[in-house]
Amino acid sequence: MRAVDLIRKKRDSGELTREEIAFLVNGYTRGEIPDYQMAAWLMAVWIRGMNRTEIAALTEVMLHSGQVLNHSDIPGMKVDKHSTGGVGDKTSLILAPIVAAGGLTVPMISGRGLGHTGGTLDKLEAIPGFNVNLSLEEFRHVLRECGMGLIGQTAEIAPADKKIYALRDATSTVENIGLICGSIMSKKLAEGIDALVLDVKTGSGAFMKKEEDAVRLAEVMVETGKQMGKKVVALITDMDQPLGRTAGHSNEVIESVEVLRAGGPEDLRDLSLELSAWMFFLGEKTKTVEEGRRLAETMVANGKALEKLRQGIRLQGGDERVVDEPQRLPQARSHAEVVSEKAGCVIATKCEQLGTALAMLGGGREKKEDKIDHAVGLEFHKRIGDRAERNEKLVTIHYNSAAKLAEAKTLIGDSYVIGDHTPKEKRPLVRRILGA
Amino acid sequence: MRAVDLIRKKRDSGELTREEIAFLVNGYTRGEIPDYQMAAWLMAVWIRGMNRTEIAALTEVMLHSGQVLNHSDIPGMKVDKHSTGGVGDKTSLILAPIVAAGGLTVPMISGRGLGHTGGTLDKLEAIPGFNVNLSLEEFRHVLRECGMGLIGQTAEIAPADKKIYALRDATSTVENIGLICGSIMSKKLAEGIDALVLDVKTGSGAFMKKEEDAVRLAEVMVETGKQMGKKVVALITDMDQPLGRTAGHSNEVIESVEVLRAGGPEDLRDLSLELSAWMFFLGEKTKTVEEGRRLAETMVANGKALEKLRQGIRLQGGDERVVDEPQRLPQARSHAEVVSEKAGCVIATKCEQLGTALAMLGGGREKKEDKIDHAVGLEFHKRIGDRAERNEKLVTIHYNSAAKLAEAKTLIGDSYVIGDHTPKEKRPLVRRILGA
Repeated sequence: MRAVDLIRKKRDSGELTREEIAFLVNGYTRGEIPDYQMAAWLMAVWIRGMNRTEIAALTEVMLHSGQVLNHSDIPGMKVDKHSTGGVGDKTSLILAPIVAAGGLTVPMISGRGLGHTGGTLDKLEAIPGFNVNLSLEEFRHVLRECGMGLIGQTAEIAPADKKIYALRDATSTVENIGLICGSIMSKKLAEGIDALVLDVKTGSGAFMKKEEDAVRLAEVMVETGKQMGKKVVALITDMDQPLGRTAGHSNEVIESVEVLRAGGPEDLRDLSLELSAWMFFLGEKTKTVEEGRRLAETMVANGKALEKLRQGIRLQGGDERVVDEPQRLPQARSHAEVVSEKAGCVIATKCEQLGTALAMLGGGREKKEDKIDHAVGLEFHKRIGDRAERNEKLVTIHYNSAAKLAEAKTLIGDSYVIGDHTPKEKRPLVRRILGA
Repeated sequence: MRAVDLIRKKRDSGELTREEIAFLVNGYTRGEIPDYQMAAWLMAVWIRGMNRTEIAALTEVMLHSGQVLNHSDIPGMKVDKHSTGGVGDKTSLILAPIVAAGGLTVPMISGRGLGHTGGTLDKLEAIPGFNVNLSLEEFRHVLRECGMGLIGQTAEIAPADKKIYALRDATSTVENIGLICGSIMSKKLAEGIDALVLDVKTGSGAFMKKEEDAVRLAEVMVETGKQMGKKVVALITDMDQPLGRTAGHSNEVIESVEVLRAGGPEDLRDLSLELSAWMFFLGEKTKTVEEGRRLAETMVANGKALEKLRQGIRLQGGDERVVDEPQRLPQARSHAEVVSEKAGCVIATKCEQLGTALAMLGGGREKKEDKIDHAVGLEFHKRIGDRAERNEKLVTIHYNSAAKLAEAKTLIGDSYVIGDHTPKEKRPLVRRILGA
């Protein structure tokens, strides 16, 4: 078998066998197939596509390029959630404690933010001392102790994905459903889970702007996960505007704690409870999703979820006092307001721009190497459908460096589409559920 | 400007500007853009294609990646011919002496054989002592002395092409009209020529099996050459069977000498004279192509072309006695025959297979690193339309190693399609002429 022939086959729209995909991916991971051949193959895949069988084979080969965790020594089902990312999406910080408090184990391997999207690892690192770089042994210990652990991808987990993802980033071959599925599912299945809830975002702040693209990606991921013997559902959820009232790392930790105290914004609370409900249901903790929802509400109401968060922070080396004393999180020195230029109703937001503005201010990464300022953040005062008067506040900016403040303010102001009419109908937060 | 954005642009079927193409090609040649980004871009180009403007820009940028020769110190027009390659195509060895004898200068930079096709440099190297690796200074000296020089690509000539070609070979991005045009025309225009005759082969032994593909490639090359201010015509010629009666390096030198002695097979003589005629016409040596044809015939009849060949061999360090004493060329130790399994008429040949069999026996390269045995060759006894009796000789094999003889014999025997009827019509050797 020769890489050059497999590149040609995909270039000419051929279907690759499992053996051929394994030859390429394993050869590349071992350094036997050079970057340039993998790059040519990735571009051929991006343009020609892969069918379901090829995507499943790719995912499986990538999964087995490294260690697949086994938590059979821990009783009960292991469940996780993965979101395709957006602005202000902090549900992991809320649902992991809820589900762990409810008796399931959540072995969550997360990612970092890039471009307009935030990452769970970065949010956790706003908490002083929190260590996301646990060894697999430490990870297992934390899971056994409190039922939830939140770490980054280690060298042992899906090394093929790590190497291929870096190459995709440099060769404009990121946004392809098969390659995205392989990347996400190989990592998630390596966690040693029994069930997975996918939160596939769609709208102006999501990678998949169009709902049909989000649905296609969700279908492929659900099918691939099921083929590997896992229970998987996907919720297609709204990202036409930020989730909750804040974005930025300290801000999002605070807002997550508010939800765990039975407060916080309605949309964030709703989605976090809904995702928790599906995790309870797939994890066979409850017989129905509705029952799962009630269990999640109970874990919030009785304070057990908040206590679980404290325990999780403590076990991963963080300062659990941030839960009760939010001033212990990094605080921005300055604030600025973006106001509405006219009176009217918020028709839409250019949500991706809001994420970009946050990154520009230091509260995210424009490039992978960038350092994050956890104190930087945005507070959103208006949601789609809300009325705004002229000069009324739309967004409060928390910032430390004024270097790009003017540029960010312009971008944020331009993100709000203010019109004369109210939007026709409120679109539901959860648009569709697949795989149930 | 970032390579990753230009890759995305082509991936999404965008048109690249001259500046963008220059950024990529020059950055790659200088080693600033890595192989993997160029590989992804080449695959995007292969699949999405380039328009005429992009192809012209690519050719020009590749041309100017190195030195462009200037022979203005040598009086008269400089003309050349390029063939897209086939089996038994030895016209360069014949037309270069004819055209130089007729008073034009032929600064020919040629290539080597790979796969089923032969290369002019390899054929010349069958002549003991012949040096194709002249410095540019030596090349100029030979051109001034005798009006023809035949060398390989030097480091100074189109270095972008050298680097990009190696990458295309390893990434299955060879067979693309825009990339082929850029590669051929950048090298040919760097020779410092005023006019170029293209021999674009089509048929079972050519790269462009279908005539319409050959025509498209020819059109693009003619237009690109003309845009650069050169006189260019393209002849679409038959490669449904080997050209002439032999393939293999010593064999082809001998056959070329036969044509220069006013003998040799009709098809080879015809095509060599026709290409010479166009070179004389484009080089403004004659007012019409017909007149060019007569001048070519005269140069053969009066022995001046043969004398020019002797001079050219001498000036490049070769043993000119091979012209009169062909036994001085490498001779194979053994011969074998492939005979017809039944009586009938030759309907067609699988011409590429004949070239592959030759390479397999050592008379060509299966891989770039392979060494060639110049003594190995094939003699073809039957042409399309000829009658063959059962057990009558189709091909005589000249070989040294019997290692793959059986396999080669099978391949050669299978290359001849023998039927009950004669082919309907004889197809002309020159099918179309473009750009005239």
